[in-house]
Amino acid sequence: MEHHVRDLETAQIWARACNDLVHRVVGLFPDDFAGVCQLPQTPDDPIKTAVAELERCVNDLGFVGCNLNPDPSGGHWTAPPMTDESWFPLYEAMVELDVPAMIHVSVSDNPSFHHTGAHYLNADTTVFMQLVQGDLFARFPNLRLVIPHGGGAVPYHWGRYQGLALRLGRPPLEEHVMGNVFFDTCVYHQPGIDLLFRVIDLDNILFGSEMLGAVRGADPSTGIAWDDTKRYVDNAGLSERARRQVYEGNVRRVYPRLDARLRERGR
Amino acid sequence: MEHHVRDLETAQIWARACNDLVHRVVGLFPDDFAGVCQLPQTPDDPIKTAVAELERCVNDLGFVGCNLNPDPSGGHWTAPPMTDESWFPLYEAMVELDVPAMIHVSVSDNPSFHHTGAHYLNADTTVFMQLVQGDLFARFPNLRLVIPHGGGAVPYHWGRYQGLALRLGRPPLEEHVMGNVFFDTCVYHQPGIDLLFRVIDLDNILFGSEMLGAVRGADPSTGIAWDDTKRYVDNAGLSERARRQVYEGNVRRVYPRLDARLRERGR
Repeated sequence: MEHHVRDLETAQIWARACNDLVHRVVGLFPDDFAGVCQLPQTPDDPIKTAVAELERCVNDLGFVGCNLNPDPSGGHWTAPPMTDESWFPLYEAMVELDVPAMIHVSVSDNPSFHHTGAHYLNADTTVFMQLVQGDLFARFPNLRLVIPHGGGAVPYHWGRYQGLALRLGRPPLEEHVMGNVFFDTCVYHQPGIDLLFRVIDLDNILFGSEMLGAVRGADPSTGIAWDDTKRYVDNAGLSERARRQVYEGNVRRVYPRLDARLRERGR
Repeated sequence: MEHHVRDLETAQIWARACNDLVHRVVGLFPDDFAGVCQLPQTPDDPIKTAVAELERCVNDLGFVGCNLNPDPSGGHWTAPPMTDESWFPLYEAMVELDVPAMIHVSVSDNPSFHHTGAHYLNADTTVFMQLVQGDLFARFPNLRLVIPHGGGAVPYHWGRYQGLALRLGRPPLEEHVMGNVFFDTCVYHQPGIDLLFRVIDLDNILFGSEMLGAVRGADPSTGIAWDDTKRYVDNAGLSERARRQVYEGNVRRVYPRLDARLRERGR
């Protein structure tokens, strides 16, 4: 949070405090939660300053993944694309620790971008295209990135991305990006979820939901919370096998440390 | 084009030359084309410097609309939201002339954003959310804006926008924004077009296609060009009446000067 504030020391103390709080919640409710850490990013400091906190959270606190902000400037997009080697020290640590990152921006400090209504979705779309343009997973074949909000604009424009990959001389998306990139189900209406499952391979979809989400509130015509995504997934016409894959199998594959925690608990 | 280059005189000469060329093509093929103008925008000059070119194109050349760039900085998003009053001189001219604007960015001068793969779609999404946050159409009830690429990420996340409008204390989208905002059909695969028609009211969808589009090339599995959007619309299961509305009726309603030109030619 507040990554755009240019103060590394505060960012580090804040990340540590928040991650310790997450750890405490996980300790209180170990059957319900596993920890994923925030990283102390700022717009001016190299990503390697965040590696120690990732290592602490995974090695000492038992966390299973992290959140990575592709735009620490908060809506000014001053960082290089995520395929740039300046990001590599973190990717090396992630691969070493075998944890994925969710790619999710923080606040918008740019009046053009509403945070949940524009900045979040733009970031998803932007990073996906950076990955199509680049060749990051040739360098890091075991790196795994989760793009939230059902992939931003990507599944709705899947034909565009297939065509762009071809024009840029890249392999088909299935071979080039989708071995390492996963979309969640945080899409808040039935037609959107239906499109996601129609377009994106089942192996690449992870169940995601909200506790107290950014789009809090209920559809007045139905009384159902917008972000009650399980309802949409349940109504997407999936087989029982597909449902299990989305709700559990894929998540355990992408987050192997979560899988190990669950196995330890006999699940 | 090249709006991010900070040279108003060159921008004006260039816009004039391009619009004159469009006018020449329309004169050669009057049954096929009607003119829509580019505007000489730069990041540093007020939008009123573009009004004279709009007036020239509509009054002298018979153009029926314009293109408006919400981010003349080319990917740095330094302009205020499109609901800001600094944009109003152009809106006043558009209303006076009864012409709509397509809201479409130009190049991306920011290495984070691929132009067609990120910047275009982000701009669509960003401006839609600016319109949800603001109250522009209370001030300009006859202003009409076309958002290309099927509305960016918006139809895929329609539940999110319905929920955000409610949370922000705005009227339902149908009353608040969708009386004045229209999406085109430049979505390059069947599932995307199907979602568009499932979610967005038929009155708000205008047929759009490409001649030589940014996503040139054909799907190798079918041999069909990605941007051959008529094929997708034809296969969307629309009634004959709905098809006529999307291909012609809505466009003539949103672009009344096109309607007048067609009537003059007995169409």
